[in-house]
Amino acid sequence: MKQNRPEQSAIVPDIDTILSEIDRNLEVATAKLFDLISIPSISSEPESKPAIERAAAWLERELAVMGFAAETVQTAGHPVVMARSTAGDDASGDLPRLLFYGHYDVQPIGDRDQWVHPPFEPEVIEEDGLHRFYGRGASDSKGQLWTFIEALRAWKAVEGQFPAEIVIMLEGEEECGSPSLPAFIDIRRDDLACDVAFICDSDMWSPTQPAITTQLKGLVHERVIISAPNPDLHSGHYGAVAANPIRILSTILAGLHDDAGRVTIDSFYDGVREIPESLRAKWRELSRHEGLFDDVDLRGGSVEAGYSLLEAMWGRPTIDINGITGGNQGPGERSVLPGSATARISFRLVAAQDPEAVRQKFRDHVRARLPEGCTVEFVGADGSSAVMLSQDSAFLRATARGLEAEWDTPTILKGTGGAIPLVQHLADGLGAECIVIGWILGNDAIHAPDERYDVERLRRGTRSWIRILDEVRQLP
Amino acid sequence: MKQNRPEQSAIVPDIDTILSEIDRNLEVATAKLFDLISIPSISSEPESKPAIERAAAWLERELAVMGFAAETVQTAGHPVVMARSTAGDDASGDLPRLLFYGHYDVQPIGDRDQWVHPPFEPEVIEEDGLHRFYGRGASDSKGQLWTFIEALRAWKAVEGQFPAEIVIMLEGEEECGSPSLPAFIDIRRDDLACDVAFICDSDMWSPTQPAITTQLKGLVHERVIISAPNPDLHSGHYGAVAANPIRILSTILAGLHDDAGRVTIDSFYDGVREIPESLRAKWRELSRHEGLFDDVDLRGGSVEAGYSLLEAMWGRPTIDINGITGGNQGPGERSVLPGSATARISFRLVAAQDPEAVRQKFRDHVRARLPEGCTVEFVGADGSSAVMLSQDSAFLRATARGLEAEWDTPTILKGTGGAIPLVQHLADGLGAECIVIGWILGNDAIHAPDERYDVERLRRGTRSWIRILDEVRQLP
Repeated sequence: MKQNRPEQSAIVPDIDTILSEIDRNLEVATAKLFDLISIPSISSEPESKPAIERAAAWLERELAVMGFAAETVQTAGHPVVMARSTAGDDASGDLPRLLFYGHYDVQPIGDRDQWVHPPFEPEVIEEDGLHRFYGRGASDSKGQLWTFIEALRAWKAVEGQFPAEIVIMLEGEEECGSPSLPAFIDIRRDDLACDVAFICDSDMWSPTQPAITTQLKGLVHERVIISAPNPDLHSGHYGAVAANPIRILSTILAGLHDDAGRVTIDSFYDGVREIPESLRAKWRELSRHEGLFDDVDLRGGSVEAGYSLLEAMWGRPTIDINGITGGNQGPGERSVLPGSATARISFRLVAAQDPEAVRQKFRDHVRARLPEGCTVEFVGADGSSAVMLSQDSAFLRATARGLEAEWDTPTILKGTGGAIPLVQHLADGLGAECIVIGWILGNDAIHAPDERYDVERLRRGTRSWIRILDEVRQLP
Repeated sequence: MKQNRPEQSAIVPDIDTILSEIDRNLEVATAKLFDLISIPSISSEPESKPAIERAAAWLERELAVMGFAAETVQTAGHPVVMARSTAGDDASGDLPRLLFYGHYDVQPIGDRDQWVHPPFEPEVIEEDGLHRFYGRGASDSKGQLWTFIEALRAWKAVEGQFPAEIVIMLEGEEECGSPSLPAFIDIRRDDLACDVAFICDSDMWSPTQPAITTQLKGLVHERVIISAPNPDLHSGHYGAVAANPIRILSTILAGLHDDAGRVTIDSFYDGVREIPESLRAKWRELSRHEGLFDDVDLRGGSVEAGYSLLEAMWGRPTIDINGITGGNQGPGERSVLPGSATARISFRLVAAQDPEAVRQKFRDHVRARLPEGCTVEFVGADGSSAVMLSQDSAFLRATARGLEAEWDTPTILKGTGGAIPLVQHLADGLGAECIVIGWILGNDAIHAPDERYDVERLRRGTRSWIRILDEVRQLP
């Protein structure tokens, strides 16, 4: 870790040669990334545990081969792969210490039939003028973490040593809310201490314009299961008179928003402050940039009245229904009055909203609307709070300059509706400055069928890290 | 078929001996029924086609062994098993001709995990003072059709011939709306012509009180699939602004009824006449009988305002939601904004409502509520109209007397919320009088997990047919 660094190192790295090394090795780097994508490391499905272990072992091996001191650290949940540069590689103690975070776990694939391309067999396909590849985790987030690993490899291959002390942390449970991470960070505080943490799991503003995400929403997942007083009944016999949990659930879900698109849960907005006019002005400016909504058709959507699209996405708490299940799921028709129905809900929180308080308000809301004799069960996973990161710091400006050098256009500081629980854990646990970047695009279909990425973004993302390292290296 | 029958046959059958034969053979009859229940003849699932064929072949063989002229008749859908008594057995032309209808197909099992007992491995279990057995089709309707087959076997075993000309028709697609039956009836009109058709697929009033169902509702199944303009999206990125088909579908489903429990679809009630005061009075009288609602907990239900439970069930058109599916169905949480959501709806119709007209009104209703940019797809199966059968005829009175003789208590003439499309087809196609009876009970869990029946009801249902045949035999 940088403590009292002497004057700027006299050795000026040969950035052009490092960038050429990345271009030269692109085919190999792509093939290695495909190996990683081929491992179905779905963190939320217990049957995928062996794949999780396999992905961690694969990463540890790759990092060890590059000369890192690498280890797979078991947690109460899925393992964390840790790697750090060794003394010979970085002249530790004299250089800034940089933490690189990525996650190797992926979302479930959902309905396999909705994938045109197989979810775990990536191959390069030429389409839309790109060398595209498909697979769960292609962009979220194996395609992200591979950019900094390949960049560090190239830097060391050319220069012989890193321009900073490097710590790499690859998590295996980001897609299920990072439940084991706070304890892990607490135990490994010294190993993780850093001057800046780069969280590489975010998106660009557009295919040609880089971005740093400085504001993230909190996230609470909640499953609600409503049961009638009877198990399944014949709907012909009792449909007209007995409780139907699907009808009850639908009514509750339909009532979560009023006609203005505001959430109706009592005191849901408590502690939510109006978006400051300065930020609204900035976002109004941003929304004039092209690109952000190019890949999505917003017709039929329902935005809270009084707010712009960006304000609703980044600055207002929202509720999504992520799944619903009840009664007949088979191929044929069935005259059944189901005994229960389930919805999966998620809350996206801002600033001062406490995840557990929101969860309780929702539960109270549902209980108050439950007809007599019916019961409700809730299943909740750990929640995370919203995060507001620094909008201006030496590291942030250096990162923005690095991105700008690669993409030849200004870096946009943006918010997101997404959550990365890790950011809060790192900020709280280490007191480290966090910088959230990445090269995901809106039409990468992350969390959806046919998730994709492309070779050119892998290349330019990797090159971006070289530019960023070069900028960080020159900080006083 | 009875044409100009001479005076009453002089030979008086030995009813007590026939009844004893049924009691004597009970174990064998139960074992045979178990063989039939073990065949998973689910008519609505294409992969069950071999089981359907196996069930039909099993029945044809059993009926042939009993001396019937039996055949399996292929249709555009699943086969119909036909059997008729031969000349030596019934002195045809001189006796009334009776048609016995049952169906050998069953409902899907739904979620296997919800069954405590295996759905296709029946065995006798002593519980609640009964010799109960579990299995899909145990009561609906293999346990029903087996009562008249075993009764006819016993009659012939004791008497050497039947007291009537017998036609048996066992259908394989009742649980999916009998789509092939109208064409089949048309082609086999002469074989099916009869003086009365007994439809054995209905329920008792209570465990101790028999009933004849004289009023059935119509039925329309409809699947509605709502799609957003985008396929699945990341709910963190676009949840606040893009269309969510689950939310749209929930809102439409929640709005199908107003606060008074009335259906809100425009002109849904067109042609529906108020229930005549005479019928309401009769039903008020019936609702003082104990038993009908003993097995079901009606708390949380929603009955149309202004109507009693029986009136809502038997005399008012209703809508049920039988299933709903959308977004994440996996074991873990997934931050997905789904591309589509599906509901399965059924309409229970009365008197003059036309199934196709109701379907179109529903489709118009949904289309009118569809947000811009979203699309809807409908998948409909054949519908059936409501049926009002004779409330008073010689055959009906004979049947009621027969039931009364076995159960030693009056037979109740009742309605049902259920539909048996076949009844309309038979009434329309043959102009035959239809009598709908059976020994199903409310807690038999038909169409639900752990469907059940018991040996005593099998015995007394079988014995009931002997009493009915004896009454019919004596009609002038």
